[in-house]
Amino acid sequence: MSDDKLPIRTENFPEWYNQVILRTEMADYAPVRGCMVVRPYGWALWENIQQALDRRFKATGHVNAAFPLFIPMSFLEKEKEHVEGFSPELAIVTIGGGQKLEEPLVVRPTSETIIGYMYSKWIQSHRDLPVLINQWGNVVRWELRTRLFLRTLEFYWQEGHTAHATAKEAEEETLRMLDTYADFAINDAAVPVVPGRKSNAEKFAGAVRSYTIEAMMGDTKALQAGTSHFLGQNFAKAFDIKFSDWNNELQYVWTTSWGLSTRFVGAIIMTHGDDQGLVLPPKLAPIQVVIVPIYKSDEDKSRVMPVVEAITKELVDFRVKVDAREEVTPGFKFNDWEMRGVPLRIEIGPKDVDKGTVVFARRDMLGRAGKSFVSMDQLAAQVAEMLKTIQASLFDRALAFRQANTFDPQNYDDLMQITEKGWALSWWCGDAACEAKVKEDTKASTRCIPLEQPGGAGKCIVCGKPATEKVFFAKAY
Amino acid sequence: MSDDKLPIRTENFPEWYNQVILRTEMADYAPVRGCMVVRPYGWALWENIQQALDRRFKATGHVNAAFPLFIPMSFLEKEKEHVEGFSPELAIVTIGGGQKLEEPLVVRPTSETIIGYMYSKWIQSHRDLPVLINQWGNVVRWELRTRLFLRTLEFYWQEGHTAHATAKEAEEETLRMLDTYADFAINDAAVPVVPGRKSNAEKFAGAVRSYTIEAMMGDTKALQAGTSHFLGQNFAKAFDIKFSDWNNELQYVWTTSWGLSTRFVGAIIMTHGDDQGLVLPPKLAPIQVVIVPIYKSDEDKSRVMPVVEAITKELVDFRVKVDAREEVTPGFKFNDWEMRGVPLRIEIGPKDVDKGTVVFARRDMLGRAGKSFVSMDQLAAQVAEMLKTIQASLFDRALAFRQANTFDPQNYDDLMQITEKGWALSWWCGDAACEAKVKEDTKASTRCIPLEQPGGAGKCIVCGKPATEKVFFAKAY
Repeated sequence: MSDDKLPIRTENFPEWYNQVILRTEMADYAPVRGCMVVRPYGWALWENIQQALDRRFKATGHVNAAFPLFIPMSFLEKEKEHVEGFSPELAIVTIGGGQKLEEPLVVRPTSETIIGYMYSKWIQSHRDLPVLINQWGNVVRWELRTRLFLRTLEFYWQEGHTAHATAKEAEEETLRMLDTYADFAINDAAVPVVPGRKSNAEKFAGAVRSYTIEAMMGDTKALQAGTSHFLGQNFAKAFDIKFSDWNNELQYVWTTSWGLSTRFVGAIIMTHGDDQGLVLPPKLAPIQVVIVPIYKSDEDKSRVMPVVEAITKELVDFRVKVDAREEVTPGFKFNDWEMRGVPLRIEIGPKDVDKGTVVFARRDMLGRAGKSFVSMDQLAAQVAEMLKTIQASLFDRALAFRQANTFDPQNYDDLMQITEKGWALSWWCGDAACEAKVKEDTKASTRCIPLEQPGGAGKCIVCGKPATEKVFFAKAY
Repeated sequence: MSDDKLPIRTENFPEWYNQVILRTEMADYAPVRGCMVVRPYGWALWENIQQALDRRFKATGHVNAAFPLFIPMSFLEKEKEHVEGFSPELAIVTIGGGQKLEEPLVVRPTSETIIGYMYSKWIQSHRDLPVLINQWGNVVRWELRTRLFLRTLEFYWQEGHTAHATAKEAEEETLRMLDTYADFAINDAAVPVVPGRKSNAEKFAGAVRSYTIEAMMGDTKALQAGTSHFLGQNFAKAFDIKFSDWNNELQYVWTTSWGLSTRFVGAIIMTHGDDQGLVLPPKLAPIQVVIVPIYKSDEDKSRVMPVVEAITKELVDFRVKVDAREEVTPGFKFNDWEMRGVPLRIEIGPKDVDKGTVVFARRDMLGRAGKSFVSMDQLAAQVAEMLKTIQASLFDRALAFRQANTFDPQNYDDLMQITEKGWALSWWCGDAACEAKVKEDTKASTRCIPLEQPGGAGKCIVCGKPATEKVFFAKAY
């Protein structure tokens, strides 16, 4: 709420990001290293994300449940890759009720193991399949370098865990949920994402194949915004999850897991934000419309406020805030709500009352270009239309930005230059050594092998050997 | 899903309770001592409870946020009563990322301390007040004797934490939220509750005054179903939460906290359940209506199923399940859904199709008495009406049960007998020694001093000294 200007986004993106979050009261640093407090404005955005996803999960037959926060250490050790991947990041409870515990308990970093254990109890027959369960909750990973929303010790997410009778069904589920994430990102968050497959080096610890949606942030770095994993029978074998099939023979199930976290709040901030602060997509914005009454005299006030009240009633289907503060000026309010990213501002003063109009001011087009005079007739329909327009414009802008910053390197030097300032979409032979060399030389990692491929073949950008797939190389959060 | 009968409720209430939960797949035991897995059917009920409460919280100006799971041990020690109350129950993280932590982290048993710390940063002026924040999340208390939903190491709840400029406002908030809980319990859960004040011995560790809603379970034991605490300036002083008042003078804020947990799921089960299993209140039931098609031949099936489909479409505003399983009989389905407590069953067979009727079978009145033939005309309105009737009947039955098992003891012997099999509403002088003697002699505790008092005065049921308030004595969960 300070009058100090925000850091300029293009000059110091990381500091701009932190200041936007702190000043808009999205989140704050917690007194425990690496943890955050999600403040009401940030949590309201997350709740809208939750609803948008939960609706999609339920429409595709999933149900929610809750599994324990604590996992016996021995569970993690049952899947070799899994424990290797997660053991450096664990928070461990060693004391309970004043006593040292016989077996330490891990605060869940993810729940494949404990859910696998329960599935082995619940699943007996092919009639019990598929199991399509999702969980909303918190997990803990002991990260060393943390950033609000992007990487915190504790974060909030959903993790889906499904079990199927066949590999085919499980693979279909894995891709269905990837598609669900992409649909949410594109249509609700206005964040253009590339759905693709992770390389072996980048996949989830314990998965056969991992898929991701990757998004380009405002500084051209990539952000992994949601992942979906085909786990094969790895966890089924580790936890002995078997079912009797149609021939009455015992088989291991095939499982998947998929997750999207509060990191996505960071993705929204870094995709759409500008030098004035947040720019929130209308479908997810905690406040879609802010109404600012404008008056100087008590007489004007007595004419303006009843109209504000009437308008508010008409806009009951939207998330509306009336800013009736007396201690600050309209100009202060304009800046304040622009910083907070409210998509549409409606200004109404005595002249508007006379003319039966209001002013619309779009957050995505500041200044005169974004202002229009609108008749009060059919106001709800006009607001709906304007929010739709803003939603589409945010998506188009973000997509154009990604396209403008995605390049096709002609040689390795080119790749090294491109990954300094954008994404490179290159032929890659699939060899981990080539991938490692790029990371070593440029700090850029393979982000994903996009599902949509150009077809044909080319030469690996690193070693020159034949390649049949293109991959995105980019620096990433 | 076993055909074995449930234990008989009146013969072995605790075993009946456990078996109902396990067999209806509301919850299961977790592989960590004292923890539970809330399965999809149980979680769907909790989600409905969450929505019913969250709507009320938001309507009274509250917003949601998320505070960290981990609290530095030193924070708890800042409020003397608080740490004394909670320290025997703590789970403590001593290792993070492979390193021993310098300061151990407590897994939150409740969040007054860490929220108090954040409020001291956020609150500066009277303009920042009131702060009305709620959090939905999980907490951990290292309990020795655990029961599914009623007392588990980890449980799910909401905890509201508010800060106010004056004691009066904070006390009003405390009672407003108590009233909110009572309104939810009575109107949505059909659980009659007594709102009242806790004795000093029973109050929350760190509170000035605690309030509770107390409910009578089917075995006449009491259950504390939600609590609201006036914390005075205890936490404000411990965490230095100050604001500059209207005269620009620094003052400590006044705080409240209030919580309702997954324990309430246990309250619903134990209030309404019967020998057949669960009986769920229509407003919260995950499935409000189950439709069971009845046919023997393929020809009948081809006549019945289109009507089932049409009815399902008509009932789109309700939570409806069509049980079209082929491998079990309608009789099996009737028992199954009765066990799961679905309020209303609609049966439809070929004769019904001919007559344009369906059968309604009420879960709260089993057998012929609960069945009625209903015309398919205006079916949605009839379903709405029937669900309303069932909702009211559940409440009336539970209230009548409580009234029938609440007594006015004439002397101490009488009190001892009554607390064996019900609640005693008695005059009490307020002395902790009298309360302790009753607990020692009968295992009954003071449940609450009801807000609604008869007025006048009497003699303490224990010591005979003058008393101005009546209290409920009862054994409790």
